[in-house]
Amino acid sequence: MKRSLGVCYYPEHWPEEIWALDAQQMVETGLTWVRVGEFAWSRLEPQPGQFDWGWLDRAIATLGTAGLKVILGTPTATPPRWMLDKYPDMLARNSAGEVRKFGSRRHYCFSHAAYRDEARRITRLMAERYGAHPSIAAWQTDNEYDCHDTAISYSAHAKHAFQDWCAQRYQSPQALNAAWGNVFWSMEYDSFDQLDLPNQTVTEPNPSHVLAFRRFSSDQVVLFNRVQCDEIRKYSDRPIIHNFMGRITAFDHYDLGADLDISSWDSYPMGFLLDRVGADETAQAHYLRQGDPDFQAFHHDLYRATSSGRWWVMEQQPGPVNWAPWNPAPLPGMPRLWAWEAFAHGAETVCYFRWRQAPFAQEQMHAGLLRPDRSPAPALAEAAQVAKELAEVPDVGTAKAPVALVFDYDSAYAWESQPQGADFDYFQLVFDCYRALRRAGLSVDVVPKSVDPSAYEITFAPGLLTVPESLQGGLVVAGPRAGSKTEEMTIPDGLGPDITGLSTKVTFVESLPPFAPMTLAGGGAFIKWREALETTDTVILHLEEGAPAAVRNGQMIYIAGWPDAAGWRRILEMLAEQAGLDLMDLPPDLRLRETDSHRFWFNYGPRTVAYQHITLPAAAVHWEAK
Amino acid sequence: MKRSLGVCYYPEHWPEEIWALDAQQMVETGLTWVRVGEFAWSRLEPQPGQFDWGWLDRAIATLGTAGLKVILGTPTATPPRWMLDKYPDMLARNSAGEVRKFGSRRHYCFSHAAYRDEARRITRLMAERYGAHPSIAAWQTDNEYDCHDTAISYSAHAKHAFQDWCAQRYQSPQALNAAWGNVFWSMEYDSFDQLDLPNQTVTEPNPSHVLAFRRFSSDQVVLFNRVQCDEIRKYSDRPIIHNFMGRITAFDHYDLGADLDISSWDSYPMGFLLDRVGADETAQAHYLRQGDPDFQAFHHDLYRATSSGRWWVMEQQPGPVNWAPWNPAPLPGMPRLWAWEAFAHGAETVCYFRWRQAPFAQEQMHAGLLRPDRSPAPALAEAAQVAKELAEVPDVGTAKAPVALVFDYDSAYAWESQPQGADFDYFQLVFDCYRALRRAGLSVDVVPKSVDPSAYEITFAPGLLTVPESLQGGLVVAGPRAGSKTEEMTIPDGLGPDITGLSTKVTFVESLPPFAPMTLAGGGAFIKWREALETTDTVILHLEEGAPAAVRNGQMIYIAGWPDAAGWRRILEMLAEQAGLDLMDLPPDLRLRETDSHRFWFNYGPRTVAYQHITLPAAAVHWEAK
Amino acid sequence: MKRSLGVCYYPEHWPEEIWALDAQQMVETGLTWVRVGEFAWSRLEPQPGQFDWGWLDRAIATLGTAGLKVILGTPTATPPRWMLDKYPDMLARNSAGEVRKFGSRRHYCFSHAAYRDEARRITRLMAERYGAHPSIAAWQTDNEYDCHDTAISYSAHAKHAFQDWCAQRYQSPQALNAAWGNVFWSMEYDSFDQLDLPNQTVTEPNPSHVLAFRRFSSDQVVLFNRVQCDEIRKYSDRPIIHNFMGRITAFDHYDLGADLDISSWDSYPMGFLLDRVGADETAQAHYLRQGDPDFQAFHHDLYRATSSGRWWVMEQQPGPVNWAPWNPAPLPGMPRLWAWEAFAHGAETVCYFRWRQAPFAQEQMHAGLLRPDRSPAPALAEAAQVAKELAEVPDVGTAKAPVALVFDYDSAYAWESQPQGADFDYFQLVFDCYRALRRAGLSVDVVPKSVDPSAYEITFAPGLLTVPESLQGGLVVAGPRAGSKTEEMTIPDGLGPDITGLSTKVTFVESLPPFAPMTLAGGGAFIKWREALETTDTVILHLEEGAPAAVRNGQMIYIAGWPDAAGWRRILEMLAEQAGLDLMDLPPDLRLRETDSHRFWFNYGPRTVAYQHITLPAAAVHWEAK
Repeated sequence: MKRSLGVCYYPEHWPEEIWALDAQQMVETGLTWVRVGEFAWSRLEPQPGQFDWGWLDRAIATLGTAGLKVILGTPTATPPRWMLDKYPDMLARNSAGEVRKFGSRRHYCFSHAAYRDEARRITRLMAERYGAHPSIAAWQTDNEYDCHDTAISYSAHAKHAFQDWCAQRYQSPQALNAAWGNVFWSMEYDSFDQLDLPNQTVTEPNPSHVLAFRRFSSDQVVLFNRVQCDEIRKYSDRPIIHNFMGRITAFDHYDLGADLDISSWDSYPMGFLLDRVGADETAQAHYLRQGDPDFQAFHHDLYRATSSGRWWVMEQQPGPVNWAPWNPAPLPGMPRLWAWEAFAHGAETVCYFRWRQAPFAQEQMHAGLLRPDRSPAPALAEAAQVAKELAEVPDVGTAKAPVALVFDYDSAYAWESQPQGADFDYFQLVFDCYRALRRAGLSVDVVPKSVDPSAYEITFAPGLLTVPESLQGGLVVAGPRAGSKTEEMTIPDGLGPDITGLSTKVTFVESLPPFAPMTLAGGGAFIKWREALETTDTVILHLEEGAPAAVRNGQMIYIAGWPDAAGWRRILEMLAEQAGLDLMDLPPDLRLRETDSHRFWFNYGPRTVAYQHITLPAAAVHWEAK
Repeated sequence: MKRSLGVCYYPEHWPEEIWALDAQQMVETGLTWVRVGEFAWSRLEPQPGQFDWGWLDRAIATLGTAGLKVILGTPTATPPRWMLDKYPDMLARNSAGEVRKFGSRRHYCFSHAAYRDEARRITRLMAERYGAHPSIAAWQTDNEYDCHDTAISYSAHAKHAFQDWCAQRYQSPQALNAAWGNVFWSMEYDSFDQLDLPNQTVTEPNPSHVLAFRRFSSDQVVLFNRVQCDEIRKYSDRPIIHNFMGRITAFDHYDLGADLDISSWDSYPMGFLLDRVGADETAQAHYLRQGDPDFQAFHHDLYRATSSGRWWVMEQQPGPVNWAPWNPAPLPGMPRLWAWEAFAHGAETVCYFRWRQAPFAQEQMHAGLLRPDRSPAPALAEAAQVAKELAEVPDVGTAKAPVALVFDYDSAYAWESQPQGADFDYFQLVFDCYRALRRAGLSVDVVPKSVDPSAYEITFAPGLLTVPESLQGGLVVAGPRAGSKTEEMTIPDGLGPDITGLSTKVTFVESLPPFAPMTLAGGGAFIKWREALETTDTVILHLEEGAPAAVRNGQMIYIAGWPDAAGWRRILEMLAEQAGLDLMDLPPDLRLRETDSHRFWFNYGPRTVAYQHITLPAAAVHWEAK
Repeated sequence: MKRSLGVCYYPEHWPEEIWALDAQQMVETGLTWVRVGEFAWSRLEPQPGQFDWGWLDRAIATLGTAGLKVILGTPTATPPRWMLDKYPDMLARNSAGEVRKFGSRRHYCFSHAAYRDEARRITRLMAERYGAHPSIAAWQTDNEYDCHDTAISYSAHAKHAFQDWCAQRYQSPQALNAAWGNVFWSMEYDSFDQLDLPNQTVTEPNPSHVLAFRRFSSDQVVLFNRVQCDEIRKYSDRPIIHNFMGRITAFDHYDLGADLDISSWDSYPMGFLLDRVGADETAQAHYLRQGDPDFQAFHHDLYRATSSGRWWVMEQQPGPVNWAPWNPAPLPGMPRLWAWEAFAHGAETVCYFRWRQAPFAQEQMHAGLLRPDRSPAPALAEAAQVAKELAEVPDVGTAKAPVALVFDYDSAYAWESQPQGADFDYFQLVFDCYRALRRAGLSVDVVPKSVDPSAYEITFAPGLLTVPESLQGGLVVAGPRAGSKTEEMTIPDGLGPDITGLSTKVTFVESLPPFAPMTLAGGGAFIKWREALETTDTVILHLEEGAPAAVRNGQMIYIAGWPDAAGWRRILEMLAEQAGLDLMDLPPDLRLRETDSHRFWFNYGPRTVAYQHITLPAAAVHWEAK
């Protein structure tokens, strides 16, 4: 498959005179794609019902004439100020009930039906006008759903929509009361209109209530996006894309991705490192100018799974950004390395964000491929190099992995609704497993829980709220906490884990503070979480104190705790031979990723790394045919 | 006296078919008491004025028939959802003015008179129906007043009630202005209806204003409880109990206890350790599965003083809970040890919470004596063992202590209203003293400030806002900060300490950051707080820099600072001989508690401890007749 | 010039009988000035329009008769409770939109025009009555503008006033949109009444929006003060003073100072150390009872620049205060040392706060020169000693400094509106430079950016938002971040630094976390911030990795980062010889300050310090004629 590069561009920010020069320079750099339009509503419809399409017509014409393919974004993440005059109540509210005002972006509540209609309207108008335009080669809906924690709103509109959602799901208040166990603390409802959102309760709300609200909130995002997809498809046969963000568990990306043709995400390795990876200070210092070596890879693998395998990086960090606690510059080579990591995971296209640094407003300190004075910024040459390399290596193969790792949004909601330990975080649990696999040199498919385990050597499913019947037929590593609840967040009859084939019960659990891990006999430890088991399955791992730490019954393995890095390594080593996997022990900074035809090596460290036949300078990438 | 065990039970959570089996198993375990009803309002009165007593009739009959004594709780901590429809303004508000919504429990403002009437009504109906029932052997009012910080509300109802309370107390705005010194910063009021609650002021409010509001808030809780006691007593001669919580200084437990027949409290040693003891990380790791060795003991001694000496543990932790930052499981033996520590302090009854772990809602991760699947949880056998031991040792004697330690809620309010140092905490000050006494092997009576010191070898009174005239006649150790204010939180004429018999003035005070303690000559230090003295009393302790650190005049000793552990030890050693006290120097994990007939040893450590003739394994208890 | 001492006094807090005794004791102590009245509105106008001037007449008469000069304060920082009945909407709101209620002080929004009129009215009445009174020798307006973060309000009044302010500044919404770059994210406005305050936006607001709001907020404070100055000047020719606070960047003190005759500030060295200096724990422990050795000096030099050179200390800490996280007592000698440090910087008068410790309300734990029981507190003797010394050394000379350091409030607003690194703080940047200069034994003039550099050997201008053309003609050290923006907070065409004479561009910047400084070749480091340069100027300093760290072109030097202490020292050493400056390397605790006639040495340490011919005990001051 042909891989390509692109860039994000805001013609409305620049004098029309330079558009053609910009387009020419994009082409000379080797870029194929250019994304436009996604924040431009105030310029497309300056007053309600009064449109100015001219500038966008000309911008698309200029870009298209230069040979670029245009991705056109719907501008619904930035409703103009006049929209507030029409719908003063369209704003979201945070969990404290405070309104989230105009003056930046994403100032809308997903449950505001009239705003959803406005989003439908502007999308329809754009699709009508540009749906068949020869230069429009793809669509983007909105921008970064949930960015700035916007998927969840506690507005009155959200409350009423949640009541309706519950009425649909449970059919009667009595059924809802039974499902949630509302007899507890006299929390029973007589009618759906008594139901409130689960914020500002005196102490913690019923976790079943929270889980329902989280599922509802996800559905509202999916609905908002679907409305746009439906409009676009009426007028256009070009693929529809949305750009996800990193470490977002506020909506179900599989559900939303089902309405897309291509998933994409916005990859900011250095911003993420300081803002959301959760790395300690030593790791932050070591990877300061490179980003975490596994965080992007994980999201590449995750989002590849959300839309039938087609996926892009829609925004690739080119230099310092403006939004992390600190914003250093990347090591030379990293903007190239990041792009190649994406291609090695199967990305079709990587677009840098943005073409030229804006000299004004919130992102004026966000680097682009060009500086605000139109001179090249450091990443421009790296983008050009990647483009040249892509031309030389036209097909790097298709992503393929021997092991699968389940990521499940429902489980994320569930454990957020009742973590039981202050630092129990589902994303972190899955990511710890991912890092262990990658450190062992394994390529990974992140998959939904509907995966067929027989397609993989091993399927890992840590922390899965409920374990489906279908998760059988191959070697499966489940637990901790897997199958410990029903779909409504109650304890199953007969206790968990509710997993077919296991003869094991969790009789109680312990959440563990950071200063009190429990060591495993033979090395490694459980951190944060361990479970006491009553079992007739084969115990394959023990705590140092003697209790079972993992059991096995046929192809099903259950881990009764949260392994640290050494613990995961031991589990992998126990299973590798049977699974026919060769485990490497990569140097800390080195990473490997395979496609069906190629093997890619990446050095995320600040110094040269040598391993086997490979010697890689800092920030370097190397690929070889298999 | 006969000691007994009990358990908390929620028949409304379980199918009626298993009630009799549950009752039988309770009896077989050796339990005497069972508490029911305290959260069941929505099942007793599903709609306003429409009652369903049948299930409770049958549950009580089933339990009573099995031979159990029933404690019946009023369900006023969990008003049903329909109550909100009647009184939308019944909810409390936090100090930010935010409403505290329905969806958990304790969702009422103590100053909402109409809800207080509803509480009176349901209490009267229950007392009428069950007051003379042969199986009802005690009452519990509401549940854990102030749990989730609910005693203090900043609602409009609270404001108006506070205005009335001030009008009663001060009689005129002029008197209030004078008492509080409102001439300062032009804070004078012309009428009581100008008076607001002391939240959300631009900078800190007048501490006299805060102190008055705290006293008012306490009085509202006491009034709410008294209304229920009055109703119950009209129809029932069974003792009335309320279950207090740990480290609560939001209302005066002596005042409330005066309306009870028996005080009780809910003892969660492991939850408390991580949530509110204030232990450092080393201590948290060491006592992770045992709980702090002094925290429960302190509350046993405190609550024994709040209701004429009769007291219970109404809820005893049996295993992991759900509400602390982390929730590990107890060492085997601790659920037994905790019960015996309570009996050694004079508890009549210890009830475990709860019979069976609920499979739903907020507390689904809270252990019981049974697991959700009805199998025994680890604590069941320990409860049975305690029951057996109680049968073998029918009388363990009456609590009796040679030293007294004053705990005074007014003082807690006062220093919270103006700590003067960021970490000045009255509870911690008293608790530090308590721990020093207990480390020395002394049994302690916690007492109100109305105590007669002649009844004790030594009476300790650290941090007492005002020192009453009656605190004379025995050896008294007062200070720091004792008698430094008037009842209205102003500085007394002639400065403090305003203590009869002392010829000492505090000329200024210093609050000390954690990194700047002041060492005492000869060992130990003052932390957090020290006072400069002008004195003609005998100086019995000096700072290393030379200034007086403690003075004595006759039987009155004044400590001019907050001693660390070594400092308290030195003070005890100075006084022991004269007071006729033998000080032990117990190993860190060992504790001793005496009744008039027995001596109890407890090992709170994770390893065996030897001391004198005692060798105790981890989590073990030993008793011997004196 | 004759220097003098004074004190702050509240006759309304004390029985009239002791006023004369107080006055006599003030005179005997050697005090010249006494400030009264600034919080007494409720006593001057107990009901709207009903006045009681009698007590103030008598108090002024008593003080004047004793020979004291009276500073009369307008009481506008403490509107009486009845004012709220007239204007319930006069209260400010914080950035969360929460009202800031009555019950302490400063409970007004600067944009409330009716309250501003009330302030004008009471000021006029006082000026009419006392403007020509022989004992009234000066005026104070209000008290500590912005104390408790009160300069910035998000009330509806503030919003409307801000809309008017923007309409004035930008003349059209289109011009505002263009100036702020509101095309970004469709943030464009159609009319000024659509404009909201920049709080509670979904993510960060446009920094240009914030900067405008900060300038507006400053103007509102200046206007509020000007109204009072205008009224006073109609009736009185006595100098007008306002008392600033420490580390306040919420309004432009130069703008406000332009309306004053004398600037003053309230100097609380020990409160500041723990509350706002930003010192680490080691420094806090070392200077616990002395205060930071540079913090007061910096403010002396800063406020000297805000009102034509005439300045006072209006409130000088005498002992422990009540408002810092911890409040220890000063080392003996410090209240004297602090006063002399002020005189060495040119203070005309130092007033201690307060005469006698109040026994009630918020400041009852705030020391005075007398204790609440009227006995001398430790500082009284020190004040008397200073008075005696002033009599012996009648003229200590005029402040004079060889180097200038620019402090610019606009720059503070700008970098607060978009710090780009979590710990980028303009005040800290300037203060770090100040500390380096003072450690080198240099006396410093803090100056506005309109300074003429030819008047100084070197002028330092770190972090200046925009660099004016006038900042030429002497040796100037600019950067980092200097001239990097336009006045409207956008990036200049051609990039920054926009500084005449330099041939250097900043191509990108890096903000650096605390654990990732960048070392300079030859010693020292950049912390927090560094810039990549494209330059044809002479590179005079390099990073260890090779990149330019500082450049020079003629008299203009540009520093491309935030130097640590060693870095500043290296820069000073590079420039000292050319500038004709002798650099000292003072011991850490020793400080030097020169006037045109005298040299003053101060030991801020807890132990004796020896340097050159000087040996100074702890907390001691020494002066010598030059």
